Amino acid sequence: MSATDPVRLRLIASCPDRIGIVARVATFLADRGASITDAAQYNDARSDMFFMRSEFTMGGGDAARIELENAFKPIADELKMEWRLVDADRRQRVVLLVSKFDHCLAYLLHRRTVGDLEFDVPCVISNHDDLRSLVEWYGIKYHHVPVPKDPEGKQAALQKTADLIGEAEPDTIVLARYMQIFPPWLCERYRHRVINIHHSFLPSFVGAKPYHQAEERGVKLIGATCHYVTEELDAGPIIEQDGVRIRHSDSIKDMMRLGKDVENAVLSRGFRYHLEDRVIVQGNKTILFS
Amino acid sequence: MSATDPVRLRLIASCPDRIGIVARVATFLADRGASITDAAQYNDARSDMFFMRSEFTMGGGDAARIELENAFKPIADELKMEWRLVDADRRQRVVLLVSKFDHCLAYLLHRRTVGDLEFDVPCVISNHDDLRSLVEWYGIKYHHVPVPKDPEGKQAALQKTADLIGEAEPDTIVLARYMQIFPPWLCERYRHRVINIHHSFLPSFVGAKPYHQAEERGVKLIGATCHYVTEELDAGPIIEQDGVRIRHSDSIKDMMRLGKDVENAVLSRGFRYHLEDRVIVQGNKTILFS
Amino acid sequence: MSATDPVRLRLIASCPDRIGIVARVATFLADRGASITDAAQYNDARSDMFFMRSEFTMGGGDAARIELENAFKPIADELKMEWRLVDADRRQRVVLLVSKFDHCLAYLLHRRTVGDLEFDVPCVISNHDDLRSLVEWYGIKYHHVPVPKDPEGKQAALQKTADLIGEAEPDTIVLARYMQIFPPWLCERYRHRVINIHHSFLPSFVGAKPYHQAEERGVKLIGATCHYVTEELDAGPIIEQDGVRIRHSDSIKDMMRLGKDVENAVLSRGFRYHLEDRVIVQGNKTILFS
Amino acid sequence: MSATDPVRLRLIASCPDRIGIVARVATFLADRGASITDAAQYNDARSDMFFMRSEFTMGGGDAARIELENAFKPIADELKMEWRLVDADRRQRVVLLVSKFDHCLAYLLHRRTVGDLEFDVPCVISNHDDLRSLVEWYGIKYHHVPVPKDPEGKQAALQKTADLIGEAEPDTIVLARYMQIFPPWLCERYRHRVINIHHSFLPSFVGAKPYHQAEERGVKLIGATCHYVTEELDAGPIIEQDGVRIRHSDSIKDMMRLGKDVENAVLSRGFRYHLEDRVIVQGNKTILFS
Repeated sequence: MSATDPVRLRLIASCPDRIGIVARVATFLADRGASITDAAQYNDARSDMFFMRSEFTMGGGDAARIELENAFKPIADELKMEWRLVDADRRQRVVLLVSKFDHCLAYLLHRRTVGDLEFDVPCVISNHDDLRSLVEWYGIKYHHVPVPKDPEGKQAALQKTADLIGEAEPDTIVLARYMQIFPPWLCERYRHRVINIHHSFLPSFVGAKPYHQAEERGVKLIGATCHYVTEELDAGPIIEQDGVRIRHSDSIKDMMRLGKDVENAVLSRGFRYHLEDRVIVQGNKTILFS
Repeated sequence: MSATDPVRLRLIASCPDRIGIVARVATFLADRGASITDAAQYNDARSDMFFMRSEFTMGGGDAARIELENAFKPIADELKMEWRLVDADRRQRVVLLVSKFDHCLAYLLHRRTVGDLEFDVPCVISNHDDLRSLVEWYGIKYHHVPVPKDPEGKQAALQKTADLIGEAEPDTIVLARYMQIFPPWLCERYRHRVINIHHSFLPSFVGAKPYHQAEERGVKLIGATCHYVTEELDAGPIIEQDGVRIRHSDSIKDMMRLGKDVENAVLSRGFRYHLEDRVIVQGNKTILFS
Repeated sequence: MSATDPVRLRLIASCPDRIGIVARVATFLADRGASITDAAQYNDARSDMFFMRSEFTMGGGDAARIELENAFKPIADELKMEWRLVDADRRQRVVLLVSKFDHCLAYLLHRRTVGDLEFDVPCVISNHDDLRSLVEWYGIKYHHVPVPKDPEGKQAALQKTADLIGEAEPDTIVLARYMQIFPPWLCERYRHRVINIHHSFLPSFVGAKPYHQAEERGVKLIGATCHYVTEELDAGPIIEQDGVRIRHSDSIKDMMRLGKDVENAVLSRGFRYHLEDRVIVQGNKTILFS
Repeated sequence: MSATDPVRLRLIASCPDRIGIVARVATFLADRGASITDAAQYNDARSDMFFMRSEFTMGGGDAARIELENAFKPIADELKMEWRLVDADRRQRVVLLVSKFDHCLAYLLHRRTVGDLEFDVPCVISNHDDLRSLVEWYGIKYHHVPVPKDPEGKQAALQKTADLIGEAEPDTIVLARYMQIFPPWLCERYRHRVINIHHSFLPSFVGAKPYHQAEERGVKLIGATCHYVTEELDAGPIIEQDGVRIRHSDSIKDMMRLGKDVENAVLSRGFRYHLEDRVIVQGNKTILFS
C-alpha cells in the first residue's frame, strides 16, 4: 500500500446523547477528505445514549488512518465516547473452538475459502481430535486439548486452552459448537469478542441438550441463538436468532439435522455482523446496525 | 337434509399399535360406501401408539352417521381405541373469553363473518366491558363478569364464568387474550378443548408481560404460542408457534403492535387445526395431521 | 402548540455524492438545536447518488420548522438535492380505493382506530357499494363510483374518481385491492404517492387473478407485493414483499384465505414505511431506511 | 440380510378415485404382516385421482418384497394404478451434474458423508474441471466433459454426457448448478428423475442470470426453486421453493452469497422428498406427502 492509496475505514462510537454529535464527527471526517458510504445513528431513549457507525473511504493510506485516530482522540474525550476506528480491509484473526460436531466449523471454513466471509484463522482448538483432518485439509493448525472431568485436570486444560488462544493473538473467538463451559476469567479477558452459537431460541432451553429439551416440551419450532459469551451460561447479549418448523414425526436426530442449517445461518449472520462492526453491546443487549 | 344426502365425516382415532388397523378401519368404511378424501396415519415409535385421521364422504344423511358410529363401537373396543366420529359440516359452538386487547377477538369474528373460519359463538365472556360494542355489532351476546382481586370475589367470578360457559354448551373455549388464570377444575372439565394464545415462544417467557420479559432479555425474535390449557400455567400441549423479527429500536409498544399479527396468525392456524380435528393430544405433545 | 413546543421532524434527501454532505446537513441541524434521534445515510455506488434520512426533535414549534425549511433551501440548491422536510407528527391524508374484497380495508381501518397506524382518511372510493356499511361504521365518507365496461363510461368514471381524489387533497392514495387499472395520468399526478398491493411475488403473475395463475403453475409459495403504481401494470418500484407456504391440497379458495394475511402484512409494512418516510424511489427501485 | 430380517418398504400409488382403495391396499398389506408406520392418502377433486403413500415394515427379507410386488400386480391392474414398491433402505444411485459453482455440490456431499442424506454417487459430471479436487477428496469419480459452443461439438458433448450417465445406471440425476440446457431426449429418458435447482422464485426470472434479473427488477426477496426438469426451460413440476430477504444495499455479489444458503436448503429439502418417495407428479404439479 502506498501513502496515497485510499483506505476503507469504520468509526464505531457510543456516548451520552447531546446536540451536535453527528455534526462534530461528520465535520471532522469531511475536513480530512473522508467520503461516507454507509452510516447510521441512533439515540436510545431509555438510556439516553447515542450510537453511531460510519463507513467511509479516505486517501492517504495507513498513515492517514493513524493520523485520523490521533486527531479524533480529543473530540472523543470531550464527548465521553467509547469508540474505535477500524480498517475495514484488515482481516480479523479468529480462533475457532470446536468439539465433535463439524457442521459450523465446516460451514465457516468453506465460506471463508470461497470468499463469502473474510477472516484469518491462526488456529483451531478442540477438546477432541475428531476434526483434525478437516481443519488440516484447509492448511490450518489444529490443537487438541482434552478436557478431563476432574477439577484439577479441567483447570489445567482450560489454562492450556487460554495459553494457546493468547499466543494466537485473536481479535475474536468463535465457539463453533464447543461443548465446554468457557471460564469467566477468559470471558472477561476477551469481553464482547467471544461468540457462541447455542441451538435453541434462548432463553428457552439453556444449557445441555437443548434439542432433547425441545422434544420433551413438544415445541413446534426449534431455534438457534448467536450471542456474546459472558459469565452466566447462555445469558450473554444476543446478536442473532432464527428458527425452523418441526413436525410431530421429527425425532431428536431429525431436529439435529434440521437444526444444523439454522445454526449455520444464525452463526454466520451473527459472526458477519461482528466482523463488519455492526454490533454495539449496551448492557445485556445489542444495537445492530444491519 | 334428506335421508340420502351425502355427509362429510371425520374419524379421529388413536390406539396401541398392531398390524391391520388401517385395513380394519378402511374396510369398515368402504363396506358402508365411504369415499376417503384425505387421510393420514402415523405410528409413534416412542410410545408405540398408532394415530389416524380420515376424512370421507358418505350417502345416507345423518342417520348413516349414527349407524356408522354404532357399528364402529365394537371394532374400536377391540382395538382399544380412543376415537370420535365428527360431522365435518357441523359448526362447533365456541365460547370466546377476552379481556381488553381486541385484536384476536376482532380477527376471529371478522374471519368468521367472511366465511374463512366456520364456527358458532353462543357468547363472549370478559372480565372487562371494553369490547362489548364490537361483539354486539356482530350480533353476539356479551357477558361482563368482573374478576375482583380478593380471593372470595375472584372465586365467585370464576364460578359465574363457569356457569355462563356451561349454559352455552360449548365444544371449544378460546382464551383470546383472556388475562386471568383459567382454574384447574375448568381445565379438567373441558380437557383439550380450551385453547389459549400466549404471546411468546414458549417455554420462553411464561406468565405475565412476556413482551416486557423479551425486551429485558434482548431477544431478536418475539413469538406466539397456541396451546391447550392445563393446570400448569402456559405449560399445556403446544398446537402452533411462530415468530417475528424485532430490532433494537423496537420499544415494547412496537413489540405489541408487531406481535398482534403473529398472535392472530398463530391463534387462527392453531384454532383451525382444532376445528378441523387435525390435533391429537398425546401426553404433553400434539400430533398434528396438517 | 405554543411557539416553544418541541417538534419532531424528518429530513429526507438525495443528491449526487460528494465529500461533506453529512457534515453540512448535520452542522446545519445542530446550529438550530436539532437533536437527532434516528438517522441513516447511504451512497449507492452504482448511481453515485447519496441518500439520507434524519429524524430529529427541535424546540420552537411550527415556526421553527418553517424557518428551518427556508434556511435549508440554499444548502439544498448548492448540493443539488431532492429533499423534503416533514413534520413527523402531522398525520397524512390518505384516500383508500377498494372494490369488493374487504380484508385490506378492514385491516387498515382497524389498525388506524387502535393507533397502530397513524393517518387520516378523508374518504374511501369504490367501484362497488359492498363495503359502504363497514366504512361508514368507522364514520368515514364512502363514494360509490361504478366503472362501466364501455370506454366512454369508464373514462367518465375515472374522471369522477380523479375529481373525488382531488377534492380530498390526499398526501397518499392506497389501492387496497382496487380491481381497476389506475390511469397513467393519475399515476403521474400523484407520482410515488399511489401504493398498490398485488397478490403475487412480482414479477411472477402480473395482472388478473394471480392466485389462479399460481395454482396453474403449481408453486409452493404464494406471495404479495406492495409497490408504487406507475404507468406500466404491476411494474412500479417495489416497497415490500413476503410469502406463505401452500400445499398441494390447497384450493384457490384456500390460497385466497391464506393470502389475506400476507397481503395485510405486506401492505401494512409497506404503507408504514411510506408513512414514516423511510422509502426513497430511485429509478425503478426503492431505498428503504428500515 | 437373512430371509427373516424385517424390511422397510414404501408403496407409492395413484389411480382413478373409487370407493375402497385404501381398504383394498391396507388389507393386502395386513394379510402379509406389514406394519404401517407412516401413511397418507389424498383425493384430488379436480382430477378425481387418488394418491397414496404407505411406509411399512415387514418380515421375510428381500424375498418377501419380491413376493409382495408380484402379488400386488393384479390388484394394481384392476385399480388402474401407477405404482411402485420401494425398498426404503436401498440407497439410490444419484449422478450429480455441476459446472463451476461448488456450494450445492459441497453441501450435498458433506451431508451425505455425515449421514444426513442417504444416497450413492457413482460419478459427478461437469462441463468444467474446477471441482475435480473437491469431488475426488470424497473418493468419487469425476468426469470432465467440456461443452463447446458450436452445435456439432455441443451435440457430441451431450451425447458423451448421456453415455456417462447411462453407464452409471442412476435412479436420479441432480443438476446441482449445471449451467447447460439438459436436452429434451434426456429429460424423456429419465422422466421425473432429473432434479434441478434454479435460483429464483419461479416463474419469476426464468433462464440465465436470475440474480441479475432480480437486481434489475428491484425485488425485496430472492428465492430458489427445486423442480423436475422437462423439455421446457425452468417450467417443470415444482417440488420445493423458498426465499430470503434482501436490502437495497445488497449487490449481485451479496445476492449470490445470500442465495447459496437458500439454494442449498431448497435443493436438499426437495431432493430429500424425492429420495423418500414423498413426491408424486401429476400433470405439471407435485403432490407432496411431507
